[in-house]
Amino acid sequence: MYRDVLGAQVSQPEPQEEHGVYTVFVEMPGEGAKVELIHPLGDASPIANFLDRNPSGGIHHICFEVDAIDAAMADVRAKGIRTLSEHSKIGAHGKPVVFLHPKDCGGILVELEEA
Amino acid sequence: MYRDVLGAQVSQPEPQEEHGVYTVFVEMPGEGAKVELIHPLGDASPIANFLDRNPSGGIHHICFEVDAIDAAMADVRAKGIRTLSEHSKIGAHGKPVVFLHPKDCGGILVELEEA
Repeated sequence: MYRDVLGAQVSQPEPQEEHGVYTVFVEMPGEGAKVELIHPLGDASPIANFLDRNPSGGIHHICFEVDAIDAAMADVRAKGIRTLSEHSKIGAHGKPVVFLHPKDCGGILVELEEA
Repeated sequence: MYRDVLGAQVSQPEPQEEHGVYTVFVEMPGEGAKVELIHPLGDASPIANFLDRNPSGGIHHICFEVDAIDAAMADVRAKGIRTLSEHSKIGAHGKPVVFLHPKDCGGILVELEEA
């Protein structure tokens, strides 16, 4: 759909063993944002629950870039936003990422990624 | 959260009577994409069902800009993607928009907006 209908540049699927997903990176022509398609990999994929609740698929999370992940984590915590892990992890792009608690973000799973 | 935690420019809420929602426009610093916050307005808001299913909130749809809405609608239909209305409507930004059928878009409600 992204390639054939919307004209996006779409990568080959890449297994991300440590994250339990396959990723496909989608670059829309002229858009400043990217779409990342994720598909479960393995028996304990962290997106299995999401697909149980949304068998047709859906929008799993949104991601914002930050300059420095540690400073961003300290900042959001100081403002009462919980992070889902104590420390950042290396995400699918090889950069540090952290997820914020959906209950603190209007029901939305928010990822921060170091730019 | 977008203003105080993430440092975004956040508009005042604007009632959109014809769409049954209040809108708040969020511009992230340095991001190419925008976030639109929507809140139900009136008894027959089109997002009432979504909030019944997602009482904490959630990500309702994603929107891509297109050059010309009529050409885009003809193009996506020719590729087997259903639109939720026969004709485009004027959206919250005063520009023609149309929604694509989530079943044809990986479970995701996709909006096209004329740029």
